[in-house]
Amino acid sequence: MADFDVVVIGGGPGGYVAAIRAAQLGLRAACVEGWTTPSGQLALGGTCLNVGCIPSKAMLESSEHFEQVSHGLSEHGVQVSGVKLDLATLLKRKDGIVGTLTGGIQGLFKKNKVEWLRGFGRLEKSGDGAWQVVVEGAEGARIVSATHVVLATGSRPRPIDAAPIDGKSIVDNAGALAFDSVPKTLGVIGAGVIGLELGSVWRRLGSQVTLLEALPGFLALADPGVAAEAHKQFTAQGLDIRLGATVTATKVGKAGVAVTYKDKDGEHTTTFDKLVVAVGRVPHTDGSGAREVGVAFNERGFIVTDEQGRTNLPNVWAVGDCTPGPMLAHKASEEGVMVAECIAGQHGHCDHAVIPWVIYTHPEIAWVGQTETQLKAAGIDYRAGSFPFAANGRARSLGNPSGFVKMLACARTDRLLGVHIIGPQASELISEAVVAMAFGAASEDLARIVHAHPTLSESMHEAALAVDGRTLHL
Amino acid sequence: MADFDVVVIGGGPGGYVAAIRAAQLGLRAACVEGWTTPSGQLALGGTCLNVGCIPSKAMLESSEHFEQVSHGLSEHGVQVSGVKLDLATLLKRKDGIVGTLTGGIQGLFKKNKVEWLRGFGRLEKSGDGAWQVVVEGAEGARIVSATHVVLATGSRPRPIDAAPIDGKSIVDNAGALAFDSVPKTLGVIGAGVIGLELGSVWRRLGSQVTLLEALPGFLALADPGVAAEAHKQFTAQGLDIRLGATVTATKVGKAGVAVTYKDKDGEHTTTFDKLVVAVGRVPHTDGSGAREVGVAFNERGFIVTDEQGRTNLPNVWAVGDCTPGPMLAHKASEEGVMVAECIAGQHGHCDHAVIPWVIYTHPEIAWVGQTETQLKAAGIDYRAGSFPFAANGRARSLGNPSGFVKMLACARTDRLLGVHIIGPQASELISEAVVAMAFGAASEDLARIVHAHPTLSESMHEAALAVDGRTLHL
Repeated sequence: MADFDVVVIGGGPGGYVAAIRAAQLGLRAACVEGWTTPSGQLALGGTCLNVGCIPSKAMLESSEHFEQVSHGLSEHGVQVSGVKLDLATLLKRKDGIVGTLTGGIQGLFKKNKVEWLRGFGRLEKSGDGAWQVVVEGAEGARIVSATHVVLATGSRPRPIDAAPIDGKSIVDNAGALAFDSVPKTLGVIGAGVIGLELGSVWRRLGSQVTLLEALPGFLALADPGVAAEAHKQFTAQGLDIRLGATVTATKVGKAGVAVTYKDKDGEHTTTFDKLVVAVGRVPHTDGSGAREVGVAFNERGFIVTDEQGRTNLPNVWAVGDCTPGPMLAHKASEEGVMVAECIAGQHGHCDHAVIPWVIYTHPEIAWVGQTETQLKAAGIDYRAGSFPFAANGRARSLGNPSGFVKMLACARTDRLLGVHIIGPQASELISEAVVAMAFGAASEDLARIVHAHPTLSESMHEAALAVDGRTLHL
Repeated sequence: MADFDVVVIGGGPGGYVAAIRAAQLGLRAACVEGWTTPSGQLALGGTCLNVGCIPSKAMLESSEHFEQVSHGLSEHGVQVSGVKLDLATLLKRKDGIVGTLTGGIQGLFKKNKVEWLRGFGRLEKSGDGAWQVVVEGAEGARIVSATHVVLATGSRPRPIDAAPIDGKSIVDNAGALAFDSVPKTLGVIGAGVIGLELGSVWRRLGSQVTLLEALPGFLALADPGVAAEAHKQFTAQGLDIRLGATVTATKVGKAGVAVTYKDKDGEHTTTFDKLVVAVGRVPHTDGSGAREVGVAFNERGFIVTDEQGRTNLPNVWAVGDCTPGPMLAHKASEEGVMVAECIAGQHGHCDHAVIPWVIYTHPEIAWVGQTETQLKAAGIDYRAGSFPFAANGRARSLGNPSGFVKMLACARTDRLLGVHIIGPQASELISEAVVAMAFGAASEDLARIVHAHPTLSESMHEAALAVDGRTLHL
């Protein structure tokens, strides 16, 4: 008998969830993870918990308080003098939250009887043709045999030759979460989700932030109306967004990082105190043994799976960022559950058509389903309905009435095809749309469901009414 | 031909929405409203917009900023000194928001071609047996004939003999939105939704607040688990909640309002600078002519309707607070839409089983469907699943990890019967549950729908998993 029914390689939100779910279903499960924090401790949680979603959200929250206290409270009748930033405390709070949550996963492993194999895992075929995983950690190597192996090795920042990370002046997302002082000027290569979130944090804390985006369009992933509104608002906030700007060289000197980039007007060089490289992420499978044992990859370096997470090799599964699809923690977790359930003989599934996207800027951006661009490209007739938060009482009470909700529904059946939000609490409002779309709802369904007053979610209701041209409050 | 196809008596969220929807459907619609603001202007919007939901939310938001800045930002690394409250500005902001929104309804009337009949309306039968409405306003009386009349006359604060409102020392909800200085001590009779929201506002602004509740239990309307958590948290915040305390007398003197109340320990007298009476609301139909023309009322003073809002008289309809059911703005609006659609020959409906409740305290409280108390009383077998925000990454990032989500599902079918939330953004999170319940969702459905990470809505997902005993993060 193998040492484990399931060994999961990788302890991020795909892997640790797969291991927990497998254990819940009675399988003997282990999870291999060798992530080491800057202070030298091993930690579960992967990129998401350690240097991704969680620390960035903690810093977005703190920096939002700082900005609001510095500028936004006088209209509330709250007068403040002497606002000061204590960056060390801000970072300590962030580290504390990360530590609590990564420690929490360790607790979940204990409770669910998942064994944490400390180190990095490499898949191998044992002599008798079964699977084994070599775990290389601080205390040497250990080999465990496994009936099933789940590859959940995640992703890593995409490197670019023109701006090699030195961890001091030129950093990736991890480094940008730990500057020990607020850079006076900050360059960010890439105006995608990560660049916008990190750029927002440091802008609020006082940096002059310039984003250099190689693509000619802004947030091409998002609905064009949402992207246009976002560009308008971020620019008004002071983010200097330069599109069609390809970085060709960087040079670290005493005055900072000189960044040379080309755009339609020619070549420019600007110097920043710090430079963040955030040009996307690539699947991270080096050292996992996947290629060596014959797991099939696609041309972009992702592990190919069927819709239930099976690779081309028997009993080898893959989930999360190392597989095709959006690199989102909740997509990874959902696939982790699916694979664990399939291994246990259940009918696990993951509905990739209703995976929500969130960008934690201010205002927040969230969407699920298809954009207008995608629907047009696919030749699908649709009706669109929008409602601005400016006409929403709760948004006005919050003092946060910018942005809108847009719903797209099939012109023939009225089935919801996409819901796009830019505005307050978009990250939470989107869940209603996800549930509705998972149920195959029509816009008319949401239009006929009561929404509490006064809430931001009334804007969802009104956008649904707008699809049929019958908003009540616009 | 009558002057109007529909005349709506009352311009609150039931009435103005009914008028707008009727006009959208091609009916000639008018709305009678004579609300006058303290500055002497006529205003649409009724209690909700003028002295209810909207101004209280504006003040809750401002007061929350004041409290947070005063106490809660040091852990974020935001150091603040010299915090001062400028109450006049706070109130001005509130009045500005109310003015914008009530003015907005006037704009909606223009756009939809609804005529605003300025004054108070009284239903009468004309000589030929048709309906007419007498509108008495500042400029005298006007009589209009109407094929259909919708009674949307709302509610008013329940008066109590022991504490007559004088508008200065003893006030109702309207008065409590306009104190010109922060009372050092504030008494509130009634620890229901309104008492808790207004008590919270003034506590945050510096008042020492005592709530006197005649009932022996706290928030009997809410799920008992939620009520217990709320009591714990509000008490910890400094609200002095005295249960089973019946006020028997009040006396206004130089030192303030002496309030005498009886509880199980006997009779007590306490003096407060100001006293708010918030012991619930009663239907407000005086002067509407409804009784005089023979509209049927129930024993509690509510207008009796069928499930589509028809009274016992032909072409006379009623919606909102003057009819049975929860006194909630969104219930009134939904009924307004329903009645307008029925008048227009459509099949209007309002699903009273999925009307959400919200209490805008901190943390917020929201629920939809049945409580454990109700299910037990009805003898319905159910399974409960809970998930605490303390185990939610977003709540931790927000620094707001108190409270929980609880889902109740039928033990036999797994259909969701009730969802109860106390915690951050409960008012927005509930919309997902409303949509799910409107679709007859099982807890298993929500457990199998992806929720974005990191969001508070993941706690909804986990609570759904908890119904089946398979939380991933607890």
